[in-house]
Amino acid sequence: MKTVEWNFTTHKLQMIDQRLLPGTFEVAVFDDYRAVGQAITDMVVRGAPAIGAAAGFALGLAANQSAATTPEGLLTDLKSAADLLKKARPTAVNLAWALDRILNTLTPSPSLKRRGEAPPLPGGEGWGEGSLQSLRAAVLTEAQRIADEDVEINQRMAHHGAELIADGDTVIHHCNTGALATVDWGTALGVIRMAHKQGKNIHVLVDETRPRLQGSRLTAWELEQYGISYDIISDNAAGYFLSNGQVDKVFVGSDRTAANGDVANKIGTYMLALAAYDNGVPFYPVVPTSTIDLSLATGAEIPIEERDQAEVLSLTFQGQAAFPEGASARNPAFDITPHRLVTGIVTENGVAYPPYLENLRKVVNVKTS
Amino acid sequence: MKTVEWNFTTHKLQMIDQRLLPGTFEVAVFDDYRAVGQAITDMVVRGAPAIGAAAGFALGLAANQSAATTPEGLLTDLKSAADLLKKARPTAVNLAWALDRILNTLTPSPSLKRRGEAPPLPGGEGWGEGSLQSLRAAVLTEAQRIADEDVEINQRMAHHGAELIADGDTVIHHCNTGALATVDWGTALGVIRMAHKQGKNIHVLVDETRPRLQGSRLTAWELEQYGISYDIISDNAAGYFLSNGQVDKVFVGSDRTAANGDVANKIGTYMLALAAYDNGVPFYPVVPTSTIDLSLATGAEIPIEERDQAEVLSLTFQGQAAFPEGASARNPAFDITPHRLVTGIVTENGVAYPPYLENLRKVVNVKTS
Repeated sequence: MKTVEWNFTTHKLQMIDQRLLPGTFEVAVFDDYRAVGQAITDMVVRGAPAIGAAAGFALGLAANQSAATTPEGLLTDLKSAADLLKKARPTAVNLAWALDRILNTLTPSPSLKRRGEAPPLPGGEGWGEGSLQSLRAAVLTEAQRIADEDVEINQRMAHHGAELIADGDTVIHHCNTGALATVDWGTALGVIRMAHKQGKNIHVLVDETRPRLQGSRLTAWELEQYGISYDIISDNAAGYFLSNGQVDKVFVGSDRTAANGDVANKIGTYMLALAAYDNGVPFYPVVPTSTIDLSLATGAEIPIEERDQAEVLSLTFQGQAAFPEGASARNPAFDITPHRLVTGIVTENGVAYPPYLENLRKVVNVKTS
Repeated sequence: MKTVEWNFTTHKLQMIDQRLLPGTFEVAVFDDYRAVGQAITDMVVRGAPAIGAAAGFALGLAANQSAATTPEGLLTDLKSAADLLKKARPTAVNLAWALDRILNTLTPSPSLKRRGEAPPLPGGEGWGEGSLQSLRAAVLTEAQRIADEDVEINQRMAHHGAELIADGDTVIHHCNTGALATVDWGTALGVIRMAHKQGKNIHVLVDETRPRLQGSRLTAWELEQYGISYDIISDNAAGYFLSNGQVDKVFVGSDRTAANGDVANKIGTYMLALAAYDNGVPFYPVVPTSTIDLSLATGAEIPIEERDQAEVLSLTFQGQAAFPEGASARNPAFDITPHRLVTGIVTENGVAYPPYLENLRKVVNVKTS
């Protein structure tokens, strides 16, 4: 079972419900794109690459759900479904990236328009009954392609990143960036998996990652399964281990990276990067190029989601609520790590080093050249 | 009810059981010094000043418990009780400071020895029945003096520190440093209370302080009672608020401060200080001079307690354990914040600024000059 998977028999989307892990392994099934949007918001599925794939398949559901009788009507329905899905979470750029990528395969490219040629619609000429079916199929084909590519991209990133890991290294990892954050394999955790697979002896300090504990719940659960040595630590404790020479490298994911190398990632990444930098420990975000947003000059332009305070006001201590009655909380879900703290950015096309403004563009453009 | 209080009727020590807050307010009663040592280890009482006072009263219990029939025998019993109590927690220096201060009132001072004079024993001449009683009374008198001084010292620190707070400030506070961390009033939280009492409008971002959640459990509970505006945040989120210009100052306590201004405090303080420094936000430890250990050149010499992994492996998420079966954890309880990140150190004798090697000595020596 992949984290995000289309069932070609039932024509439904299946996703591991990550809110229930590690205690319960349950697969949630979706036949309504709106429910997928809600599941993204509620973090049934999370992690930028997994969100992108889920949104792609949700558009597949929307295509099937549409009652449109013309290709134009179907396209209108798909665009409005995409608009709704894009609002599910604001920070990860793959959500919009995957949806736009699918919509772009269905509509004429600007270059063709400029040349005044007839648009090469996937429905072919005639816009008849058959075209509606092939439009629907085209949505799903592209969604599946995005999902398949994600696994392949993760493997390529893992190979590039694993070269940075030496035998005997202790690394800190934040949040979850493993198979559960992607369609399969993982980004930052995928790098660690690959180094382990290569026979390198590694120990992982797993930031528990308050408030939703993706580290202690999901990353530790994955590491147990891979047989990789680890200890869970309070997010608070990363600085202690970094300052005591007990950590060799830090690997994190990213939900969106700006053109200058500023990285938006799970809340706490910035403080972790500061502590790594202060102790001369290399800090590597591992990011598929689909999460690099060259349209944004700096991280200041990346929208930061603030989630429900109930996620913070959620803990018990000795069996009782760990906060007083009437307590309020703030809950930003991401922060921005300035590029000056980033040693290198691992992508499927290689590791980009400073100056990022120049070198990120190079790794992004590899795939389209 | 003070956090730590001697009951002169029952001759027992009473302490608020801080493990049960904020859900349950319960006073634990002690008549055995060993049980107080265990309560310090178990964090029934925590916070450097409160630990110092508790240890002092525990020595009072030890004096009453001793079956010694001679002053020499009682002194031997007290020294062995102090040795046991000092092992309860290694990082906070007040524990040893309070015990040594009491023992020093009972034994001849080195300067008198040097001059060859007779030692001025509190039992007076004769070492008879009466001397035993007065020795016991002297232990308790000095323990009570330490407790009383703590409240007075906190008030003086609060006045010095409150001058640093402007009307309208938002401050970040780590762990608990309030009335619950002291005999009464508080250190860093005492500064915030004083500014509030002076009519300044303040908002506090309360770090929840994993793993034992002293921020969300104890500090938020105190702030509710004082009517001071606050929001609880994940420790992870402090950097986000600091980098967005939403924070004016950071106030923390300290369990031990070295001669060069390096500060040992609750785990996470170092990362918080880094984030404050990176954004030009002033960072102030508020420390009674009893926690300044001029015998240590740098923070590297301060012993850091690592506590049971069960404190980290303690959370539930959606009603289930938030970590996989077989998980292991590391749990350092303190970290060292290098003096280069510290804007100023607030003491009862004023605020010390860099160079700390020179200026900390000045504020410490005010009280003995």
